[in-house]
Amino acid sequence: MKAEIITIGDEILNGQIVDTNSAWIAQQFAPMHISVKQISSIADTGPAIADALKQAEERADIIVVTGGLGPTKDDVTKLTAAAYFNTSLVRDPQVLLHVQEIFSRLRTGDMPEINKQQADVLANAQVLFNDVGTAPGMFVQQNSKFYFFLPGVPYEMKYLIEHRVLPVLRDLSPNTFVYNAHLLTVGIGESHLARQIEDIEAAMPPYIKLAYLPKLGLVRLRFTAVGSDYHMLREETDRHASLVAARLGSFVVANEDISFPALIVRRFTEKSLRLATAESCTGGTVAAELTAVAGASQMFQGGVVAYANQVKVDFLRVDFDTLQAFGAVSEQVVKQMAEGAKQAFGTDYAIATSGVAGPGGGSPEKPVGMVCIAVCGKSETMVKTYHFKNDRTINIQRATMAALTMLWNLFQKEGLDSIE
Amino acid sequence: MKAEIITIGDEILNGQIVDTNSAWIAQQFAPMHISVKQISSIADTGPAIADALKQAEERADIIVVTGGLGPTKDDVTKLTAAAYFNTSLVRDPQVLLHVQEIFSRLRTGDMPEINKQQADVLANAQVLFNDVGTAPGMFVQQNSKFYFFLPGVPYEMKYLIEHRVLPVLRDLSPNTFVYNAHLLTVGIGESHLARQIEDIEAAMPPYIKLAYLPKLGLVRLRFTAVGSDYHMLREETDRHASLVAARLGSFVVANEDISFPALIVRRFTEKSLRLATAESCTGGTVAAELTAVAGASQMFQGGVVAYANQVKVDFLRVDFDTLQAFGAVSEQVVKQMAEGAKQAFGTDYAIATSGVAGPGGGSPEKPVGMVCIAVCGKSETMVKTYHFKNDRTINIQRATMAALTMLWNLFQKEGLDSIE
Repeated sequence: MKAEIITIGDEILNGQIVDTNSAWIAQQFAPMHISVKQISSIADTGPAIADALKQAEERADIIVVTGGLGPTKDDVTKLTAAAYFNTSLVRDPQVLLHVQEIFSRLRTGDMPEINKQQADVLANAQVLFNDVGTAPGMFVQQNSKFYFFLPGVPYEMKYLIEHRVLPVLRDLSPNTFVYNAHLLTVGIGESHLARQIEDIEAAMPPYIKLAYLPKLGLVRLRFTAVGSDYHMLREETDRHASLVAARLGSFVVANEDISFPALIVRRFTEKSLRLATAESCTGGTVAAELTAVAGASQMFQGGVVAYANQVKVDFLRVDFDTLQAFGAVSEQVVKQMAEGAKQAFGTDYAIATSGVAGPGGGSPEKPVGMVCIAVCGKSETMVKTYHFKNDRTINIQRATMAALTMLWNLFQKEGLDSIE
Repeated sequence: MKAEIITIGDEILNGQIVDTNSAWIAQQFAPMHISVKQISSIADTGPAIADALKQAEERADIIVVTGGLGPTKDDVTKLTAAAYFNTSLVRDPQVLLHVQEIFSRLRTGDMPEINKQQADVLANAQVLFNDVGTAPGMFVQQNSKFYFFLPGVPYEMKYLIEHRVLPVLRDLSPNTFVYNAHLLTVGIGESHLARQIEDIEAAMPPYIKLAYLPKLGLVRLRFTAVGSDYHMLREETDRHASLVAARLGSFVVANEDISFPALIVRRFTEKSLRLATAESCTGGTVAAELTAVAGASQMFQGGVVAYANQVKVDFLRVDFDTLQAFGAVSEQVVKQMAEGAKQAFGTDYAIATSGVAGPGGGSPEKPVGMVCIAVCGKSETMVKTYHFKNDRTINIQRATMAALTMLWNLFQKEGLDSIE
């Protein structure tokens, strides 16, 4: 079945809020073989809402509307929907009781009319009772189309999708299954990757779709199969994912839906290995990426952000003469930083970065975007120099990703891991 | 003028990617008085693209299309647009050269046709040259409507909006001036702030609009005035911004469009003050926020990511008995961390964080979301305990913002700065 999501609210249109609701809803729908055909963010006005409903129902079977139901929204959404469905608003006694209860928990005195209006629902709707907020959801079924109206507050919306909307939808298509397989690739560009597996992709059965999901320095591959025979779907999808993985070799670092830092944290934890960082140009970003992963404390010991040269000498025991002779941005210095960090933190591995992030600080010999990275492991230290471009933010991100990739490669090379 | 944004890509529709591009674009358009009327995310198919273009041009003057231009996208977007505008695709020699150059930097051998197609552009378009990627943007002007086609990769899209799209839009209305004034407030919530300045806002002339742009822990106020008399616009807008600033007092930290970390970097640099960090639960994020600012090396000496307790003892000279008695997440320990960092890095100020970021590691006495922060200055050390909630990512962000706010407050208190 096809779905569309309509989000109502000026906060999204003027850029104050990023619409994360729609992606979350789409993720819940995908495993039910409900594919989202369009997501529209529209203004909180009658004409915009009516037009969006009309256009959506021409393309989709399921229309989910979020937002526009708060107590200060003047009921535009509900009044427009009532006119659209040629019905009226009625005050739901059960919802009114619920709203009254919440109100009296927060304030004393009589509840104003504006709050009572929260209990007004479309006369033709099934009320989707909202246990976690005041605005109820509504479900309307008309001309074989299914309309869901939900509040926009993320946790209320999520509650209603999980507890009210999905149960309704499950009853609509009981015999269709979806199966997903994932590959995470690192260090190979999207188009190069596509060429390498062109023949495998061309020979895939039509019920399996391959999506390329690229991000700085890595590409995620997602195989999605849809059909009525779950067993066959799983077998065939996994078989094709394995073919692709075999072709791509060591570019594939995981065969599941996991982030690269989370993969590193997990593998290092499994092997009881510890890591430290010594960051100059990345300024703490490598450490921040790793510690964003829950459980990172199992393998991440700590790090030094060695911005000033004196810090490189004092904390990482970089040799002052080496600094003088080659400069802070050099393979010689970054090697000493990594080895110094490994030593100082007593870890098995250490990452070090030093570079010219920009926009200033470049020279003909060491231009903006030049970054030296070292990874020190059990038995050797890998050192590389990269040449990125002019944007400071992107240079920091690319250097961070390059450092994690080098760490992964050394970790693999030292024979301590293989994809299971 | 009215704008619409169309994003093309299955990754958004299936929920794999949250559309952050549209919010960013809306933010760039707002100060130019271009209001976004609808944001639509659609599938990568000809009919979907053609329908979206048709519906958008009925509502808006400016249509921005992002995505659907990558080398593996089969040129659906470009072919559909060519048919839509009744034109053809032509290979742009300058773009081809650029693509070839990027290709040969990464690989040897002949460039395949799929890459050459990146240089194909609409014959009726003005090419928006993409210095930071292979896919060029395109600008089409037809029947008083303005169409911009941009790649979906965020940093390429941003580059093209800033360097190619905004200049074109500025030229469209040469006799209309837009003037913006900005206030950056820290430590006061949006609704509280709105109540404080209600009367000033109500008395503003109709050609000045006030936008509240909240982000974790801070609210940016943007005054936008549009009209033909630039002098008057500027005077009146600045006057109203000053009224608001006077009312809000020390909550206002800057009267320009600057990020909070950038403001801190600038003020510390002006006063020749140096800063160090000692981060446990924020794991390098405070350092990363500061070093993301160009020129941070003028005031940021370095930091320690003290994840393991041993690192707190070895690098920051935290007393082992204090750690034992009070635990790592305590005001006693975080105070020693800040003072130890100031000492070890030889700086004027130091920030320290220690907390339970979650989702694991909480206890009844020290629940998930509890974060202790210390800021050590010239003459005193400020220490505070915060109680955030359950989301690891948000806890890290909130703790980072709280740490920077405490730093700013101590810096102000020590009489070393005032808004000029």
